[in-house]
Amino acid sequence: MLTAEIIAIGSELLTPTKTDTNSLWLTEKLDDIGIEVKLKTIVGDDRLRLEEAISDALKRSNVVITTGGLGPTADDITRQCTAAAIGRDLVYRDDLEVHLRERFRSWGREMPEINKRQAFIFEGAEILPNPNGSAVGMLAEIDGKFLIVLPGPPRENQPMFLDHVLGRLKAMAGEGFVKRRVLSVSGLGESAVDEIAAPIYGAFPDVQTSILFNKSEVQIHIAARSEIEIVASTSCDKLADELIRAIGKAVFATHGETMEAIVGEHLRRRGETIAVAESCTGGLIARRITEVPGSSAYFLEGAVTYSNAAKIRTLGVSPTLLETHGAVSSQCAEAMAKGMRDYASSDHAVSVTGIAGPDGGTEDKPVGTVFIGYSGVKGTKSIRLHLPGDRYLIRWRTSQAALDYVRRQVM
Amino acid sequence: MLTAEIIAIGSELLTPTKTDTNSLWLTEKLDDIGIEVKLKTIVGDDRLRLEEAISDALKRSNVVITTGGLGPTADDITRQCTAAAIGRDLVYRDDLEVHLRERFRSWGREMPEINKRQAFIFEGAEILPNPNGSAVGMLAEIDGKFLIVLPGPPRENQPMFLDHVLGRLKAMAGEGFVKRRVLSVSGLGESAVDEIAAPIYGAFPDVQTSILFNKSEVQIHIAARSEIEIVASTSCDKLADELIRAIGKAVFATHGETMEAIVGEHLRRRGETIAVAESCTGGLIARRITEVPGSSAYFLEGAVTYSNAAKIRTLGVSPTLLETHGAVSSQCAEAMAKGMRDYASSDHAVSVTGIAGPDGGTEDKPVGTVFIGYSGVKGTKSIRLHLPGDRYLIRWRTSQAALDYVRRQVM
Repeated sequence: MLTAEIIAIGSELLTPTKTDTNSLWLTEKLDDIGIEVKLKTIVGDDRLRLEEAISDALKRSNVVITTGGLGPTADDITRQCTAAAIGRDLVYRDDLEVHLRERFRSWGREMPEINKRQAFIFEGAEILPNPNGSAVGMLAEIDGKFLIVLPGPPRENQPMFLDHVLGRLKAMAGEGFVKRRVLSVSGLGESAVDEIAAPIYGAFPDVQTSILFNKSEVQIHIAARSEIEIVASTSCDKLADELIRAIGKAVFATHGETMEAIVGEHLRRRGETIAVAESCTGGLIARRITEVPGSSAYFLEGAVTYSNAAKIRTLGVSPTLLETHGAVSSQCAEAMAKGMRDYASSDHAVSVTGIAGPDGGTEDKPVGTVFIGYSGVKGTKSIRLHLPGDRYLIRWRTSQAALDYVRRQVM
Repeated sequence: MLTAEIIAIGSELLTPTKTDTNSLWLTEKLDDIGIEVKLKTIVGDDRLRLEEAISDALKRSNVVITTGGLGPTADDITRQCTAAAIGRDLVYRDDLEVHLRERFRSWGREMPEINKRQAFIFEGAEILPNPNGSAVGMLAEIDGKFLIVLPGPPRENQPMFLDHVLGRLKAMAGEGFVKRRVLSVSGLGESAVDEIAAPIYGAFPDVQTSILFNKSEVQIHIAARSEIEIVASTSCDKLADELIRAIGKAVFATHGETMEAIVGEHLRRRGETIAVAESCTGGLIARRITEVPGSSAYFLEGAVTYSNAAKIRTLGVSPTLLETHGAVSSQCAEAMAKGMRDYASSDHAVSVTGIAGPDGGTEDKPVGTVFIGYSGVKGTKSIRLHLPGDRYLIRWRTSQAALDYVRRQVM
């Protein structure tokens, strides 16, 4: 498989608030044609580092793409640095200057003298025209490898890449297909998933598998490549099927869907409705359910009953229950779920009550103690969890556990 | 000025959908103590490239920080690669294994055998404890340069960096102070803010000012540097004060606070309460208000009345009103706000109803049409907005506009 590296150039990309996004778009396009991005570099207006980044990348990878640093000002150093990195001279192209002057004139302006810098290219470069800006791109084949130099703005480099680069790289990469799947697992840790999964994916050495943990779920990323499309998709699906069988119900999504989308799908398929009563998550569960377009088909109503008064008023939780067991209790979670279901006349209701912190924990019920209640046609029940993390993570993990609890009732 | 390079490790950071964000936070912290980030590298589970990235970085820069790749699975290769890059052996530390086993036991689990990998460190590494995860960090001084190896999750690497690394680097970097402020503006666009702000910050050539747009707010970032602390903080605050005076009420936060924190502060100061009735935002406003620790002091209740039935049942919106004006109307928004305030007996109530898309738009009320209602002791009112963006952005911007509407009533 061919490999690529992307070098994003610009001091502004090394500040605390800006990040390179060109590489995301380029990675997707390269991925589509079976070229794997192995490394990305972000470098400012530092000649030595930039030269080294380019020459190192050309030693290691089949395709090297740079973005940015082609403007007319003194800190735009990509032209000089690419030339130096590949040991070629910069040459001045009269025809480019003429063309630039014409373009400025067509915009009703005289070309500023500093833009003459943009008429320099490294020797032997093929020019990539730029209909959307003044900086042309450059392409060179060097010892069977491609060096591609693009301007920084997406509206300039994207059309340039699609029109003048993609086809060439596709021809170089040859026929080849990548099929991907993402399996999402809830309720098991990264190591536990890997212990089950490793012997299985180990038997598919040609398929790339990686296991990632993300706030409240473990994801298994599968990528199968082959010259023949059906071979790629068969090994991808075969591995996915085996993993799903081995991990079981804890796999909640088999194509990268979110938990809320999966719960929604099940409800829609069954033609059933849900209502949500939240205390410590403060609206997060309702927000997630309604993030899915078309969720109005199954989501009836949510109540954010933060205070005891609201739990009594809206959900009919009895004051005696609250006094006896407290608001953070299985009894309260169940009363909330049942009360919500009765109130909204929904098929299902889920509730949460817990201590998200940073304050409010006790010895019996430390921060992270959460009760999830469920009420449905078969009755009402609850679970108790102890979730690690800060306020944000406890709330997020509570919402995930609550949605997963619903999923297990409706799947 | 000392220089640093950051190496983000993980194949997921080379996919089209994920990007490294650790380096932004680290860049800011390094910037504060006068260390300049000159290059960032993002590399996957590729041993040769990672080794080369680390050894090249150590040749060029005073400080090299890696993040990620310290997990327990086979594709976590940072331990081996840092060792190889600096020509040291990996050593197994019994005490780390004992400690890991204890921690797993405290979480009520047995340590999976693969986690033993996390007891390896490179020879001579100083161990950076990790109270929030199982991967320890490592630090080594090599020929007067620092190599710092951190885990990937921000919740693990940020406390580790602040507690065990920052002080050491500060001592290395010597004196010099940077003072920062972030002003947040709501209800004005980026260019409008810049038009007001440019003549003002232009008069402070030594202070770095940048204007950024972020989903629903414009932020003005101010950074003043000096050898003398009081000089840095005086110019920073002086510029901030002038900008706040010129921009006026649209500045909602003067030290980078979130909108929900500011609204909460005002309510707390006044000893008043709020309730929220949401349609198209589906719980997002309640979620944001309750994200603030201690919000139970002023947040009484939220209702996610997605269906008309719920608007009638919970908020007492009249069926005739819904029939005459529709659910997406100023009349409905006002009835929702008034109904919510009466129901919860709160001092303030805010409501939203609108069309978040992708479906449901009409010629009169296209996708993005949103009505925000407010009810308080002085009466009930509403505004109509047309917000650009996709479903996610429209919902987010609606929540921001609603919170800002409340802010202007309570400030």
